Amino acid sequence: MSVERENPIRFSIREGEKAVLIEFELSRPLEPKDLKEINPPDAVKEGYSSKVLILSGRGPIWLYAYLMEFYHPVKAIATFDPRIGKAVIVASHTPEYSPGDLIDLPD
Amino acid sequence: MSVERENPIRFSIREGEKAVLIEFELSRPLEPKDLKEINPPDAVKEGYSSKVLILSGRGPIWLYAYLMEFYHPVKAIATFDPRIGKAVIVASHTPEYSPGDLIDLPD
Repeated sequence: MSVERENPIRFSIREGEKAVLIEFELSRPLEPKDLKEINPPDAVKEGYSSKVLILSGRGPIWLYAYLMEFYHPVKAIATFDPRIGKAVIVASHTPEYSPGDLIDLPD
Repeated sequence: MSVERENPIRFSIREGEKAVLIEFELSRPLEPKDLKEINPPDAVKEGYSSKVLILSGRGPIWLYAYLMEFYHPVKAIATFDPRIGKAVIVASHTPEYSPGDLIDLPD
């Protein structure tokens, strides 16, 4: 008899003109070993690599760090800061954006 | 008359056999635009690229995300989780480590 482990993380996607928001929600506190099984949306395959990818959600720093590596190939990455109400560019392979720039979430 | 802005982030380094701890401390809350001026230690130039680089410190998620991009070329990256008391591997370019593995801080 096998016990199926529930997937503790759910991703949702909202696409805007310049940016794609990838938001996650956890159904329980994440453990480090969960990183071996989470399955983030494939931004490149889904054609989002020409947009700024914005990560958002409440989770541990190592989850964000893992997602940074996962999404490294995209054009630019930002993380949403709820205190600021905007997303902060943290990585960019395009002259349009530099780390520290702010961008709005897609409507 | 020019006003010199104080550098709000200080990095310290502790090198172990398998890992290098890069710890940061903030002297005030960081603003996104500070990312344009912080100057993290150059791990590759300092010869740490063959070790696991562990990031540690209290700071915003976008600072960690920025450092993830900055240190992308190193062999493997982990972030210290004070609740677990160990560092969590989040990126690895070597078969020795996989995301979700735990490693100890250097003594």
